[in-house]
Amino acid sequence: MVGAGKEGRKDETAELARRRGFIWQAFEIYGGAAGFYDYGPLGALLKRRVEGKWRDFYRREGFYEIETTTIAPRDIFESSGHLESFTDPTVMCKSCKSVSRVDENVNVDVKCPECGGELEASGELNLMFQTRIGVTKGEGDEQAAKKSEGYLRPETAQGIFINFQRLLKFNRDKLPLGIIQIGKAYRNEISPRQSLIRLREFTLAEVELFVDPAEKNNHPRFEEVKDRKLRIVPSDGEAEEKSVEEAVSRGIIANEYLGYHIARVDEFLESIGLPRAKLHFRQHRQDEMAHYATDCWDAEFLSDRYGWMEIVGVADRGDYDLSAHASSLNVDMRVHTESGKVVPHVIEPSFGIDRIIYALLESAFYEEQVGKEKRKVLQFKSEIAPIQAAVFPLLNRDELKSKAREVFQKLRDASFFVEYDNSGSIGKRYRRQDEIGTPYCITIDYETLEDDTVTVRKRDTMKQVRVPIAEIKEVLV
Amino acid sequence: MVGAGKEGRKDETAELARRRGFIWQAFEIYGGAAGFYDYGPLGALLKRRVEGKWRDFYRREGFYEIETTTIAPRDIFESSGHLESFTDPTVMCKSCKSVSRVDENVNVDVKCPECGGELEASGELNLMFQTRIGVTKGEGDEQAAKKSEGYLRPETAQGIFINFQRLLKFNRDKLPLGIIQIGKAYRNEISPRQSLIRLREFTLAEVELFVDPAEKNNHPRFEEVKDRKLRIVPSDGEAEEKSVEEAVSRGIIANEYLGYHIARVDEFLESIGLPRAKLHFRQHRQDEMAHYATDCWDAEFLSDRYGWMEIVGVADRGDYDLSAHASSLNVDMRVHTESGKVVPHVIEPSFGIDRIIYALLESAFYEEQVGKEKRKVLQFKSEIAPIQAAVFPLLNRDELKSKAREVFQKLRDASFFVEYDNSGSIGKRYRRQDEIGTPYCITIDYETLEDDTVTVRKRDTMKQVRVPIAEIKEVLV
Repeated sequence: MVGAGKEGRKDETAELARRRGFIWQAFEIYGGAAGFYDYGPLGALLKRRVEGKWRDFYRREGFYEIETTTIAPRDIFESSGHLESFTDPTVMCKSCKSVSRVDENVNVDVKCPECGGELEASGELNLMFQTRIGVTKGEGDEQAAKKSEGYLRPETAQGIFINFQRLLKFNRDKLPLGIIQIGKAYRNEISPRQSLIRLREFTLAEVELFVDPAEKNNHPRFEEVKDRKLRIVPSDGEAEEKSVEEAVSRGIIANEYLGYHIARVDEFLESIGLPRAKLHFRQHRQDEMAHYATDCWDAEFLSDRYGWMEIVGVADRGDYDLSAHASSLNVDMRVHTESGKVVPHVIEPSFGIDRIIYALLESAFYEEQVGKEKRKVLQFKSEIAPIQAAVFPLLNRDELKSKAREVFQKLRDASFFVEYDNSGSIGKRYRRQDEIGTPYCITIDYETLEDDTVTVRKRDTMKQVRVPIAEIKEVLV
Repeated sequence: MVGAGKEGRKDETAELARRRGFIWQAFEIYGGAAGFYDYGPLGALLKRRVEGKWRDFYRREGFYEIETTTIAPRDIFESSGHLESFTDPTVMCKSCKSVSRVDENVNVDVKCPECGGELEASGELNLMFQTRIGVTKGEGDEQAAKKSEGYLRPETAQGIFINFQRLLKFNRDKLPLGIIQIGKAYRNEISPRQSLIRLREFTLAEVELFVDPAEKNNHPRFEEVKDRKLRIVPSDGEAEEKSVEEAVSRGIIANEYLGYHIARVDEFLESIGLPRAKLHFRQHRQDEMAHYATDCWDAEFLSDRYGWMEIVGVADRGDYDLSAHASSLNVDMRVHTESGKVVPHVIEPSFGIDRIIYALLESAFYEEQVGKEKRKVLQFKSEIAPIQAAVFPLLNRDELKSKAREVFQKLRDASFFVEYDNSGSIGKRYRRQDEIGTPYCITIDYETLEDDTVTVRKRDTMKQVRVPIAEIKEVLV
């Protein structure tokens, strides 16, 4: 029976994610607001584990994490170009005055989605949330008002760029210098879609790697990744499978640093359990590139529901940002290297954590017929499953419950994410754990009281094995 | 010599924290903005470790973490009372129009701090940062403008309260229900002080524990904490030392749940290394209590620089919040328990993570004379030290460097936070690690190449021992 009828059911994933406490529309009892989602208890656990894996992954590259503010003053986004360029074109309805985003597939003949009225172009709208820092001194003083303007960051990157000089000193004036940051970012989308795909508040995990431009084709560990096969879609060509080395040597991927990091992104996504068959790297066309990028490759996930969607962007930002801040402030951002005094280039892998969580949920979900009933499963890898193991007493008897509690406590003390459950039949308890992706269920029965062994049941095969309590930890790892 | 001249130097702590990359004023190259700080590489590591310990601590209580949005619509803060009550009284200068906060120690005779002009009361100012969600439909429509108003949350708690019904269901309709959240919160302070003490953007780690009011004097694990001695300062009395049990039974602390959680907060603060002699719990006077609290005890840390400062608040919020949302929305927030259908009360330990980081830095710092030079040390506990061990080759020779790299890599693969350093003399490298609080330095020398042993030097005693490479991990734990 196992594996029979295994297929993703897109609407059921969303239903399960809501029902089991992974993802909830925010402020729902207040009528909700488009583009805002909360993580429930299981969603938050899943997110913590993915973020933890991400940190470990980039720490192993020797990169350091920093944490900068989410609010920043106007000046910074004036320099970075976001005030002028981080915009979407809009249309307004002539009759009901509602504003919406011009999508690529909207042409002038389209009517207002709200009332059917006639639309007209209504200019570019900046996507940053604006606020005011402190109290503005005096009314009507335009200069003072501007000075107190603050914005919620649209990316975490600027907080790293404006700390570049301190970070370089921390790194003893040496390149390359790799800095990572995980945190909230904000985009006041005009027409956010539902679910985790186009959020107004979201989590980015960003790497800003500062390199000597003369060294971009000389990554010291390129050897480690060069044979990795990638599915790539160049901006001017067809999808193809190529090794990283070939893609770089043919100039499809511009340089070794970019190639190395595209390969690492691919490796990370595989390590958390995203199926490689549903991933490719697509190069941006010139007309879709962000204002700061010279080249950009998106890791895209093939969603049953949304088609190909970006989950990571790997951009070569060149010296755009450091030069922009240097020229606004009239400061020197150059670094002394073997090739002279250079303005470093920035390679930036930027991960949309919420979309990755969505992709994990969608690709982990399947249903299968087991005997007379349907079994719903989230087939997470052990390393990211919100709950690593559930502990059950076979029956609701005191002697079994206290033994089960003891095993549970022992695993929790050893830092495993475990759950204790004594409600309902064993079958029902297994179903619940399958639905939330728990890889192992541990049952305490009367045999346990005699010989200190337990039943370990595996989520994917539903097979049960007898394991001594002293050896449970090895099974779970 | 060790221990001689051991004393905290308050200004040097700040200098060291800046120089070594713990804490940096935000946007400094743009002239800075009061109330905003960034965490540099070592500060972020320290913060991650404290947050990790905090999560583990409350997970062991059986509490679940969630993650809710930092922006929320106006309605929520109208219900919660923040729009009306989360305010500070202000004064305005009659001549230069600058607005400042009325501090308790400011009386009417005081002149404007900026220009010396005459001051006048200028009403209450709300401390929430305001923004706008989406595009407002039509100009001049006041109703629509209000509807699109959003605020940055002043506490993480409201995101938990408005999800209460879902969370209760997740907990299978049972009380108590404990939910935790770590995240950014925002207060648009009128006159923020420097450093991490009064920030406009800060990190809260909050626990919202929902309990049956009839059970507040019946905490199932009260036994575990009852003998813990606390230094408490009741609102109407003198500082005294009392066991938790005595404080509760005499009615100084209102109930067992509050007492239990005050004791756990004390235990947590001790576990991360804050000296108990510099901690006490002070009860709020009626006139300083937040609008939602019925009782509140602050864990205060005695700072050399700022005097007693709040680092954690433990509040009994009663049924204020659930009832407020229930009545605004006309929904039922009651839970069926053995005592009938009740609106749960909320016990809330709320941790100011940035202030805790400040307290850790200040209390960990000391200087001592060692021979002819001064040694500066951050005496962090191993469990929270940003770097757990540094690995050095004794000399800058290839055979030592490659062996040192190997040991370094081995520890990093085993998830230790380690640093590799081969620059400068060994003495200089020790000094640097002392300054950033690294408890162990591991040196690879020619003996290592022969017998696979290394020198492990301890930060606090400066003593060195010879340890086989295979046993290093046990030393570090």
